Amino acid sequence: MKRAVVLLSGGLDSATTLSIAKAEGFEVFALSFDYEQRHKIELEAARRIAEELGARKHLIIKFNMRDIGGSALTSSIEVPKDRATEPQGRSRGTAPAPAAIPVTYVPARNTIFLSFALGWAETLEAEDIFIGVNAIDYSGYPDCRPEYIKAFEDMANLATKVSVEGKLRFKIITPLIKLTKAEIIKKGIELGVDYSLTWSCYDPVYTDGKYRPCMKCDSCRLRANGFKEAGMKDPLL
Amino acid sequence: MKRAVVLLSGGLDSATTLSIAKAEGFEVFALSFDYEQRHKIELEAARRIAEELGARKHLIIKFNMRDIGGSALTSSIEVPKDRATEPQGRSRGTAPAPAAIPVTYVPARNTIFLSFALGWAETLEAEDIFIGVNAIDYSGYPDCRPEYIKAFEDMANLATKVSVEGKLRFKIITPLIKLTKAEIIKKGIELGVDYSLTWSCYDPVYTDGKYRPCMKCDSCRLRANGFKEAGMKDPLL
Repeated sequence: MKRAVVLLSGGLDSATTLSIAKAEGFEVFALSFDYEQRHKIELEAARRIAEELGARKHLIIKFNMRDIGGSALTSSIEVPKDRATEPQGRSRGTAPAPAAIPVTYVPARNTIFLSFALGWAETLEAEDIFIGVNAIDYSGYPDCRPEYIKAFEDMANLATKVSVEGKLRFKIITPLIKLTKAEIIKKGIELGVDYSLTWSCYDPVYTDGKYRPCMKCDSCRLRANGFKEAGMKDPLL
Repeated sequence: MKRAVVLLSGGLDSATTLSIAKAEGFEVFALSFDYEQRHKIELEAARRIAEELGARKHLIIKFNMRDIGGSALTSSIEVPKDRATEPQGRSRGTAPAPAAIPVTYVPARNTIFLSFALGWAETLEAEDIFIGVNAIDYSGYPDCRPEYIKAFEDMANLATKVSVEGKLRFKIITPLIKLTKAEIIKKGIELGVDYSLTWSCYDPVYTDGKYRPCMKCDSCRLRANGFKEAGMKDPLL
């Protein structure tokens, strides 16, 4: 059985990605990060998803991105609410306007995540690294675009012992990159993903004894629009 | 004053690199990693060097590479001693023979280190990231070669908000990449580096109340050969 490392944030996209890797017959090694993110609650979702969807192993690597800062998700910068801007990739293929990259962008986050995934993949002898990035219904983050993913893959195959020795050729697999959020949700439902297990909100609100999504941050809004377009009710709400 | 992030392991190469960055007029932000390495003692050296050579700030990021393993430096695999092989890059320009990459290689280590450096550089608005990799007197690690560094730089400029917005163009600076160890030592001495502050050994030995270099691992042997070729005595010994 071929092994794959799957980046698992605990959100809707990464849960769907994990279920796609499983459906393609991979033995899945799920990788999450406790980086002192504001919405650390997503890690509880990641644990539930890894267990429910049958990951062979789930590793959570811990480090402190607050020391680096520079983001609303890892510093005291406020998470923007009800932003006027639309999802950045709807024109399919055009780069997002520079001004559109919001303060929730975390410097080099996907590069750090993929680097750890690469190290683990090398140890596991897994050629395939899955990441649920999406360049359609997304916030315009540069490290979610196909050209970035391609550059990371090229670098990865020069970086590692097993690739230089010709034993493995790493592939960064992005099954969602050209899907709308509604298409992602439909795909996941088809594969049996229980979206009530997932967590998307950047800025959880604690009311009546539990955390609830704020429904106003980009991530909540992209999710809500996705369920609406798919003609479905979000089972988390 | 232009800022630079300098990767600082605490060894001879990174200390020299830091002093070069200072000599070139940069305000230096030194970055080290506590990754549960066998030779964690190098972090004490890193602290001394950062202070002595006048880094503006010294950040140590902590995570556990033992969860990933796959290396003599982060698992129970033994550090090889008195290896018969010569330094891998002496033929200048040829790639190391695949079989030559030793078990002290840590999967994706420089990629992980440079990724954190990239994130910090973006927050600091520093275009220049210094790393003391060397492809002459080295152990044949793939992530020390010029083609790898170039690929990382290309990826970095597609990964980040500030590069996509055209505000910064990141450069990975490798001032030592084509120097022999003896040339590095001479350069450092010229710049006033006190090599008694540095630590190179992968597998420290505790005798007579203090840690001492084993003098048998690749790192000790490359260092000893370097001082010998430079016609100098290692002030650490």
